Amino acid sequence: MIEAGIIGGAGYTAGELIRILLHHPEVNLNFVYSTSQLGKSLYSIHQDLIGDTEIEFTSKINKEADVVFLCLGHGNSKRFLSENKFSEKTKIVDLSTDFRMKANDHSFVYGMPELNQEEIKNANFIANPGCFATAITFAVLPLAKNGLLNDDVHVNAVTGATGAGTSLSATTHFTWRDNNFSAYKSFEHQHLQEIGQSFKQLQSDHTSEINFIPNRGNFSRGIHATAYTKFSGELEDAKKLYSEFYKDAAFTFLTDEELHLKQVVNTNKCLLRLQKFGNKLLITSVIDNLLKGASGQAVQNMNLMFGLEEKMGLNLKAGYF
Amino acid sequence: MIEAGIIGGAGYTAGELIRILLHHPEVNLNFVYSTSQLGKSLYSIHQDLIGDTEIEFTSKINKEADVVFLCLGHGNSKRFLSENKFSEKTKIVDLSTDFRMKANDHSFVYGMPELNQEEIKNANFIANPGCFATAITFAVLPLAKNGLLNDDVHVNAVTGATGAGTSLSATTHFTWRDNNFSAYKSFEHQHLQEIGQSFKQLQSDHTSEINFIPNRGNFSRGIHATAYTKFSGELEDAKKLYSEFYKDAAFTFLTDEELHLKQVVNTNKCLLRLQKFGNKLLITSVIDNLLKGASGQAVQNMNLMFGLEEKMGLNLKAGYF
Amino acid sequence: MIEAGIIGGAGYTAGELIRILLHHPEVNLNFVYSTSQLGKSLYSIHQDLIGDTEIEFTSKINKEADVVFLCLGHGNSKRFLSENKFSEKTKIVDLSTDFRMKANDHSFVYGMPELNQEEIKNANFIANPGCFATAITFAVLPLAKNGLLNDDVHVNAVTGATGAGTSLSATTHFTWRDNNFSAYKSFEHQHLQEIGQSFKQLQSDHTSEINFIPNRGNFSRGIHATAYTKFSGELEDAKKLYSEFYKDAAFTFLTDEELHLKQVVNTNKCLLRLQKFGNKLLITSVIDNLLKGASGQAVQNMNLMFGLEEKMGLNLKAGYF
Amino acid sequence: MIEAGIIGGAGYTAGELIRILLHHPEVNLNFVYSTSQLGKSLYSIHQDLIGDTEIEFTSKINKEADVVFLCLGHGNSKRFLSENKFSEKTKIVDLSTDFRMKANDHSFVYGMPELNQEEIKNANFIANPGCFATAITFAVLPLAKNGLLNDDVHVNAVTGATGAGTSLSATTHFTWRDNNFSAYKSFEHQHLQEIGQSFKQLQSDHTSEINFIPNRGNFSRGIHATAYTKFSGELEDAKKLYSEFYKDAAFTFLTDEELHLKQVVNTNKCLLRLQKFGNKLLITSVIDNLLKGASGQAVQNMNLMFGLEEKMGLNLKAGYF
Repeated sequence: MIEAGIIGGAGYTAGELIRILLHHPEVNLNFVYSTSQLGKSLYSIHQDLIGDTEIEFTSKINKEADVVFLCLGHGNSKRFLSENKFSEKTKIVDLSTDFRMKANDHSFVYGMPELNQEEIKNANFIANPGCFATAITFAVLPLAKNGLLNDDVHVNAVTGATGAGTSLSATTHFTWRDNNFSAYKSFEHQHLQEIGQSFKQLQSDHTSEINFIPNRGNFSRGIHATAYTKFSGELEDAKKLYSEFYKDAAFTFLTDEELHLKQVVNTNKCLLRLQKFGNKLLITSVIDNLLKGASGQAVQNMNLMFGLEEKMGLNLKAGYF
Repeated sequence: MIEAGIIGGAGYTAGELIRILLHHPEVNLNFVYSTSQLGKSLYSIHQDLIGDTEIEFTSKINKEADVVFLCLGHGNSKRFLSENKFSEKTKIVDLSTDFRMKANDHSFVYGMPELNQEEIKNANFIANPGCFATAITFAVLPLAKNGLLNDDVHVNAVTGATGAGTSLSATTHFTWRDNNFSAYKSFEHQHLQEIGQSFKQLQSDHTSEINFIPNRGNFSRGIHATAYTKFSGELEDAKKLYSEFYKDAAFTFLTDEELHLKQVVNTNKCLLRLQKFGNKLLITSVIDNLLKGASGQAVQNMNLMFGLEEKMGLNLKAGYF
Repeated sequence: MIEAGIIGGAGYTAGELIRILLHHPEVNLNFVYSTSQLGKSLYSIHQDLIGDTEIEFTSKINKEADVVFLCLGHGNSKRFLSENKFSEKTKIVDLSTDFRMKANDHSFVYGMPELNQEEIKNANFIANPGCFATAITFAVLPLAKNGLLNDDVHVNAVTGATGAGTSLSATTHFTWRDNNFSAYKSFEHQHLQEIGQSFKQLQSDHTSEINFIPNRGNFSRGIHATAYTKFSGELEDAKKLYSEFYKDAAFTFLTDEELHLKQVVNTNKCLLRLQKFGNKLLITSVIDNLLKGASGQAVQNMNLMFGLEEKMGLNLKAGYF
Repeated sequence: MIEAGIIGGAGYTAGELIRILLHHPEVNLNFVYSTSQLGKSLYSIHQDLIGDTEIEFTSKINKEADVVFLCLGHGNSKRFLSENKFSEKTKIVDLSTDFRMKANDHSFVYGMPELNQEEIKNANFIANPGCFATAITFAVLPLAKNGLLNDDVHVNAVTGATGAGTSLSATTHFTWRDNNFSAYKSFEHQHLQEIGQSFKQLQSDHTSEINFIPNRGNFSRGIHATAYTKFSGELEDAKKLYSEFYKDAAFTFLTDEELHLKQVVNTNKCLLRLQKFGNKLLITSVIDNLLKGASGQAVQNMNLMFGLEEKMGLNLKAGYF
């Protein structure tokens, strides 16, 4: 069994990791570290877990664990790792933004299996992608792969309230969010950086703009993204490129039907639909922001790193309704 | 014109009062007092008011105002009034619980027009009823009026998230409340006191129990209550009692159709439906917790105190959808 | 008093018209025509109206009414008017798409006060704009007015479920729509026609593309739209153009704050926000699809046609929560 | 592997069964019978299943299947079984009401493992309990077991829109249900029969009334029920009875914390909380109406009938948010 630990156990992504790992056939949840919830049972915070486990939040870190997931606030992973040294065999999956951009001072691999599968299999340190970045990158990556990303991309995406984390805030207050909708961080969302990095990885001359308007939806989970750009070929050409690119993907599927968010909520899937209008290719992309956009993809990365079947523990039942 | 002031202008009930008073044909909104929002425009907080008014929150209180609405936290109205003396002509409408229970040390009239219309017309000080208390009392009052409240009353009611006020809290966080439901304060809700007082006012020998389970609904506005108790007469007898009791009510109506919450949301109405099953009379009652359950009833009380038409300024368009 | 009639009284826009007209100080609701609901009370269908009116749906049309609102399905207005002749003095406001495009065979004026105020004042026949068209046109019109609409416009907008009308359908079933999101009719929405017509009216050489992705939101009311296009001036230049264009608008306001849908839901307002990113101007626009996007704008048109104050009967209290 | 078939594959409970059975380690989904969807892929209806299976709806019934689940409308199971004879080894689990009441003309066992575990293990025909019946029966059954159900029980419960099935209807239209709430079938819900039967099974002299008010909630999944009745012992006595009764239950757990619906949505659990107020015992009960209240319990029954571990295939990840 793989002994797994979680650092920062009270947030949404930690909760989702716990839910998955508790029933993963090859994993033993070794410890869940949280100073704020120290000594409480996991189900006192993640309250659906009654009856599933009696584990408590701990302040003791097992530095010999096989894998450790970092569910810390952005900026805190770097500090945590400088203050806590794990054994050489311990693999790290970081869910923050801290190591997503390649740099000389770290050796984290960007953990997007559709992009970096082989590197992930051999990696010890994974920087898990952002949620918007996952939905948007998947929508456009096959074009970059084929050197076809030469014009502006226009992206509009909407995320659920869990995207804003557990902290109480004005825009996650029920009376504000209920039956509401708003755009935020237009053209300036922090995920644009990692999206651009992935495009450039596959199409080194990529310079066109990514115009991205994120929105707050009045639902809890999920990201729905539309992206369009000029594409000179036929729709069937585009479908061929995408089918080829995703032919081995474990969780990413193409469809010709209209997509909606609840097809993927509470699953690790990404669904993509292609349409052509005039000279523009429109791609619709849906994921669960906490699963394929965070904890599900993290476990997928773990499976790859440990040589397990990629989907192990991730055949999750969609809520659907 | 009636010069009106609001004390504590940043909360939900104050916002609703402002929305009503700005378009009330006989009222001038003289001041809105808020120390926390001092100097900001009203629409910086109540953000739908752009284009309606340029008034700012102020720290200056006009003690010569004709009417002042207290929208302070429970317990703060008493303190505020002891520290701030208004002119003799100034009428006070307090929306907190502070003066709802009759006592020797104050002369506030319980501001429920269906119960105390004549006293309200002559009052200078009004204790505005609680939201649950309004919905529940209206459901049962005609029985008390006729001395028929002799058995346990069983009440279940659900309120929207605005019932919990503007403070951020775990159970008003969108990710918690969305698509959720829970009971709270079962058998112990603070409104039981004022409900009991109203029953006793009309049926002095009333001693039966009021079993009340309040619930948190995943919507923003409204209260839906069901109440049942033993009733030996026929359904038609009950309808006659209720019709008689509410025949002059400005906003309370009976119907034989199934009720739902959105019939009254964003209005000052209370709708009631009577049914009989075996020896039990079931009454369903719906109101908007912020209007008939708070600010709307407060303006209704103001209208009565100033000899205005009872519905003036309160013909509000339901949102309905 | 203006004697007003409604043709097709059971749908959402008819319901909203009734709600407004019942309390309009210069209007008497003369008749509500509906063959499907014949003889029922208005409140049996529009169930919030209990206590407001005892009017019943009728099959008799008063052809001498001062104004008649057509709330028929798209395509039915034309047929209805050919089969029913009204008096010469009767003014018609049609809420369908039938007469929105200028043509030689009709004399309807496109009823967008911000665009055609003077024509509306003198019109007898009004084609009331579409909901998406209203939100989007308002976002871009000042650019067209100044001949600056020379590059593609990228529009993403989301509408509530009332936008789909009263008919039951798969995508308005609660279990589907709840907590869901989806795009539809991308690049091909029928409102593109009237939007283009309005742009061309102000900028006759307008030829750039309007890329429009409509979305279904999981809320009942409201439209939130973002639109961006290249703009060579500074943000302040744009604000000046917009302020100038909307300086006399009764319900359209600019703000520098982040917008959200609930600022306008249940009101007749349109709020606009301008931002500049690189060489692009981003405009956010919010309206209530049933009010400013339909029945509210219809009454605004009526007010203008009859020489009444433009906002009369339209100072509606926002639900806000 | 157990070869499993589903009759009536297009509805909600069939969808949930498919989702569970596709990943059940001991089951092969042999066929899904649907005449209305004949020849379509399962994921054309249950649209989250893209990538999970290529099975199509069929009109061919394998009468040698090991187990067949009937997901037909109430009243149709009886007719279907009279027209279709299965092999002697085929076990039947019926999700309709048709066989829930004991009768001389059938040998179905009421499939509530907490009540009839041993009978289920030996059964060939299971009548799967109703959703409300499950939530409510679990709340009170330990009292009946101990002969303590001697006074009226007062029950209020709210269900999600999936409880109304897939048919489009006025009260499952999004614009009606969104942010709404209503009671229905008060005192007369059809599940009262089977609830009474279960109480009488454990307490043969049971005659007290069950006062049950069902409500429609504005969420898709889940049932939240409160039930109270007179109880002369202490709270600790009640807890002891309940702990004892549910000590071997696979999915039913007691807690002292406040319950909410999302603790159980998308799981097969039932959570119960006990409180004592005066002489009354209040029990709160939450389940997922489609899982523990339907398809989850059906698979639990299948596990028991085939001697499998009771929880096999049912360790479902809660959606939680």
